[in-house]
Amino acid sequence: MTKRAHNFCAGPCTLPVEVLEEVQQEFVNYHETGMSLIEMSHRAREYDEVHREAMQLAIEVFEVPDDFSVLFIQGGATLQFAMVPMNLLAGGGKAGYVNSGSWAQGAMDDGRHYGNIYTAWDGAENRYTRMPAGDEIAVENVTRYLHITSNETIGGIRFFEWPSVDVPIVADMSSDYMSRRIPWERFDLVYGGVQKNLGPAGMAMVFVRKSVLQEIKPDVARYLRYDVHLDKESLFNTPPVFTIYMVGKVLKWMKEQGGIGAMERRAEKKAAILYDTIDNSGGYYNCPVDEASRSHMNIVFRLPSENREKSFLQETGAENLLNLKGHRSVGGCRASIYNAMPESSVRALAGFMVDFQQRNG
Amino acid sequence: MTKRAHNFCAGPCTLPVEVLEEVQQEFVNYHETGMSLIEMSHRAREYDEVHREAMQLAIEVFEVPDDFSVLFIQGGATLQFAMVPMNLLAGGGKAGYVNSGSWAQGAMDDGRHYGNIYTAWDGAENRYTRMPAGDEIAVENVTRYLHITSNETIGGIRFFEWPSVDVPIVADMSSDYMSRRIPWERFDLVYGGVQKNLGPAGMAMVFVRKSVLQEIKPDVARYLRYDVHLDKESLFNTPPVFTIYMVGKVLKWMKEQGGIGAMERRAEKKAAILYDTIDNSGGYYNCPVDEASRSHMNIVFRLPSENREKSFLQETGAENLLNLKGHRSVGGCRASIYNAMPESSVRALAGFMVDFQQRNG
Repeated sequence: MTKRAHNFCAGPCTLPVEVLEEVQQEFVNYHETGMSLIEMSHRAREYDEVHREAMQLAIEVFEVPDDFSVLFIQGGATLQFAMVPMNLLAGGGKAGYVNSGSWAQGAMDDGRHYGNIYTAWDGAENRYTRMPAGDEIAVENVTRYLHITSNETIGGIRFFEWPSVDVPIVADMSSDYMSRRIPWERFDLVYGGVQKNLGPAGMAMVFVRKSVLQEIKPDVARYLRYDVHLDKESLFNTPPVFTIYMVGKVLKWMKEQGGIGAMERRAEKKAAILYDTIDNSGGYYNCPVDEASRSHMNIVFRLPSENREKSFLQETGAENLLNLKGHRSVGGCRASIYNAMPESSVRALAGFMVDFQQRNG
Repeated sequence: MTKRAHNFCAGPCTLPVEVLEEVQQEFVNYHETGMSLIEMSHRAREYDEVHREAMQLAIEVFEVPDDFSVLFIQGGATLQFAMVPMNLLAGGGKAGYVNSGSWAQGAMDDGRHYGNIYTAWDGAENRYTRMPAGDEIAVENVTRYLHITSNETIGGIRFFEWPSVDVPIVADMSSDYMSRRIPWERFDLVYGGVQKNLGPAGMAMVFVRKSVLQEIKPDVARYLRYDVHLDKESLFNTPPVFTIYMVGKVLKWMKEQGGIGAMERRAEKKAAILYDTIDNSGGYYNCPVDEASRSHMNIVFRLPSENREKSFLQETGAENLLNLKGHRSVGGCRASIYNAMPESSVRALAGFMVDFQQRNG
């Protein structure tokens, strides 16, 4: 059994140790073939099984309806910031974006090269401490889609209520991917980098409603077209074999744990342990986020002073509670508790927080 | 010691077994940190060392001059088909492309979306069985760059003489990357997927002359801009951590083997073993490629009949000599012998070829 750190990193991040150990075991000589899986052709039978199983598990675990397909595309969510409007606005129209923080802004900045994009709600005036309620989002005429960021990793906020708008939703779910059920009927496309809840860095997983790709043939290179990846079942060019293989194993682990419903309950429970610790501290710990919008993945909090935060981060480091520093743009502390983070690690942190307060209150 | 297959796959392909075993050993608990490297932030000290070492080794092993930088970009060579003209033709001008086969055609087709591209030499009339000599390439006025494919994986041909043209060369070196020295003074940009000579699939490695990026600010999303990746040292977004880590280890292995000069000599020697076997077979084995253009990486050959080829592929499979089938578009046989393929495997194949001919001549 490996001695594990409590790793609260915002991503890349903790993966299931059972999965890591299985990958290690079969790494050099995959299923007694005399080769590593990463040495095989992406057209080989062995890899083909891995590829198809990962696709099928993604659909199954996330409870995705039949009219959607899953695509594996390199470049992370960042390349999707470009591909979404490149493809979905190829036939014209405009797109509304909810500006909920850093990641939403990245999506808007990149997207503007490929279409008419406007701000449908702006969180700047609240310093990105909350998400909008459904009726606060202003959708203009001729809007092809509304883009949201379901969870902002830096601000530590999440959509608590999915927008009920008259246009399809496109969501960047990178930082809470497959940690919650979503109402698929409102969505045309969901994307996210896999390096938080699903595996090692190296690609985006994209769920797209197939019918929306039928009319559009964007005037762009083949790698940038969803319809090409769909036609070729994400084997248009050499795919990121190792990433897909590991994502498949993590998905299998999620299925064994009880699927998306179990992930949602685990996330809620783990987040509650930390938010309760904060709320019961009499203001010693303070979460700047509006209560309804509190993320279940990234719990941000402050201590009474920056000096106290410095001691807190030093002492947690010594206790093997790692990577709790807030993002450099906002400061403070942040505990990222993705799907594979065990409840025991969260309890260890909560226990330490109580103890630290007693000693430094 | 792992029982290894003789894996002649065209890519992904054989990697150094020493590297695979080292990666396996440190996979779950990287340097006693209590985490896998793939669970760490890409801003963590441990990963930062890995990242910088890989960059530095790429420059060192390939003997790249100071005015170039190396970039790690997801999407394989295929995304580079778009990014090259998107960036290098952003200021205007046109580009000449040598049409040497499937991969060159892909680069041209994708490139046409982003600039004025013309065919500077066409191998179609010879059915792509040779590369042009330097003086056969017709470069038009106002040409920003000449694009070549240094080695065609499917046709089994390679540039034997680098074009001496008045414009900078851009080369897709995916299938003979770092198996030969190149005259850097003639090049502005060299790119290739890493999944043949350098590591697992999941990114392109791009060497770019820094000065050519100074004037251009293409009107595209940030992920598609070389200047952004250069400014951020390939850490603009979450990089493909595991791929970069493994490429770094393969580069270190190459350095220990004697660097690019040693790789070039090994490649020449291994290729000669197979071409000699073909040439000494009295026509039983036949290589359709023009002698000067014969690839040192992908050795294509035919047998007297398709039936013989079928038996050959069956028997080699039974002898653990694997993945010798030619590409479906051309048929026949192909032995891909990239950098990490041991000479002993090549000798095993050559020995089998002689034996097979004796039994079936």
